[in-house]
Amino acid sequence: MTDRALIHRLCVIGVGLIGGSLARALRHAGAVDQVVGCGRNADTLQRAEALGVVDHYTTDPAHAVTGADMVVVCVPLGAMRGVFEQIRGHLAPDAVLTDGGSAKASVIEDARAAFGDLPAGFVPGHPIAGTEKSGVEASFSRLYNHRRVILTPVAESAEWAVDRTRRMWEAAGARVTSMSAEHHDDVLAATSHLPHALAFGLVDTLSRWEGEQEIFEYAAGGFRDFTRIASSDPVMWRDICLSNREALARALRRYTEDLQRLTELVERGDGAALEDIFQHAKARRDRFVALLEDKH
Amino acid sequence: MTDRALIHRLCVIGVGLIGGSLARALRHAGAVDQVVGCGRNADTLQRAEALGVVDHYTTDPAHAVTGADMVVVCVPLGAMRGVFEQIRGHLAPDAVLTDGGSAKASVIEDARAAFGDLPAGFVPGHPIAGTEKSGVEASFSRLYNHRRVILTPVAESAEWAVDRTRRMWEAAGARVTSMSAEHHDDVLAATSHLPHALAFGLVDTLSRWEGEQEIFEYAAGGFRDFTRIASSDPVMWRDICLSNREALARALRRYTEDLQRLTELVERGDGAALEDIFQHAKARRDRFVALLEDKH
Repeated sequence: MTDRALIHRLCVIGVGLIGGSLARALRHAGAVDQVVGCGRNADTLQRAEALGVVDHYTTDPAHAVTGADMVVVCVPLGAMRGVFEQIRGHLAPDAVLTDGGSAKASVIEDARAAFGDLPAGFVPGHPIAGTEKSGVEASFSRLYNHRRVILTPVAESAEWAVDRTRRMWEAAGARVTSMSAEHHDDVLAATSHLPHALAFGLVDTLSRWEGEQEIFEYAAGGFRDFTRIASSDPVMWRDICLSNREALARALRRYTEDLQRLTELVERGDGAALEDIFQHAKARRDRFVALLEDKH
Repeated sequence: MTDRALIHRLCVIGVGLIGGSLARALRHAGAVDQVVGCGRNADTLQRAEALGVVDHYTTDPAHAVTGADMVVVCVPLGAMRGVFEQIRGHLAPDAVLTDGGSAKASVIEDARAAFGDLPAGFVPGHPIAGTEKSGVEASFSRLYNHRRVILTPVAESAEWAVDRTRRMWEAAGARVTSMSAEHHDDVLAATSHLPHALAFGLVDTLSRWEGEQEIFEYAAGGFRDFTRIASSDPVMWRDICLSNREALARALRRYTEDLQRLTELVERGDGAALEDIFQHAKARRDRFVALLEDKH
């Protein structure tokens, strides 16, 4: 261990886009001495080692976390509880345990179910970053640059653990904020889970349209961008929908109601009302993009 | 007039992204001798002249089309009929009259209402290209490169006129196909008008959410791409919704029904059914992108 590195031994469970990019970013920043990768698939881990993303790997989570001062679990939400059960009793007392899950209440529930009493080092987190690609080959060190990470500490989370988690993400280039898990899940349902459901839904709807082949033939760049997120990992998104189902269902119902009103405006040919909605949406979206670009 | 140029005098009515890019592309290809721009706003036309997009301009459509062998009307759909009325009686007998409107049945209806008997040179068309930007400043000569243009000739359209319209778009780099106006409107409702309505609708819905500011604060790249088309020109899209209202309303209703089923799956926590939909959508979307990239 050098005197300087923020993390001595980083253990990444689930070495895909999210976990792999974090390891790369921390290495790049000189913030980690050693990276241990863990997952169910030895081939993937071997590729991660060959790519220099991890130094060692094992398929045994209990073994992987032993001696690690930072453990980051980046598996699909449906696999969280199983991982927590496997590492229970093997974490060092001063280890931080955090994760990259896109829904937070379910991760906390899984941790409670697996650990009973939550470890003081447990700090749930969510890096709001990603692409429609997945897997360690898609990982890159700049993924978190200027991106948001939301931490949702629980009552049991120790201050030192929250602090180290925050410093880790900052070292990876991210801007870190905290909020409650429930609030996180509401916000992400709106900005991420709803759009993903809509995009998957649109491609599915169109693929069952008459003359489907032709429809895609005449689709262009707008459609490509609109549906980019429908190329995301289906298992990961199944799990997100299940894990955040209440907030997502509320968002879907709300959107559907608005869509029915929009459909009525189209049917009635109410140009003034349609123009109002479009003007307002354009202004709001243009402001959002300016905000996003400001961050960079 | 040179011996070579496909078009002697091109008249573009509505010199924005679509009309401006066509003029630039044809100039770049050496397919036009002279470009006359026309619009309601003299300032815009002056900028178009300064940018070298048009050689001359006038705000009078009747004057603009005089002596032109190719007239392309690129105004919002709601302004088509007015333009047709203004140019009636001023077109040369051998002039082609085409347009860039995103809905085709309404353009044909407007032309019938304005002209009575349709000119033999009338060939409705739709270049499937564009960006969320608008205006002549956003125009560029490669906009139509490898893009589709759909022509929807009517019974009155002369073969020479269809042929010259096709050659014009090919000179601009596009691939040209023909179909009926009704079929065009159905296909475009699905691949373009529906996604635009959904994107405008989503931004509008979220902008009226509690804690709206924060919601946009935590939105990321996926959201930016999904809503890119919500930065499109509101007046143009109001007109498209009105002009293709029946096909769009059908598409919206169909999508809404599917969305209600998806919401029920989320509420029920039916992971298998959700994964099926997402897998299928991802496979279809990945195939679409491969197809799109093939064209380039």
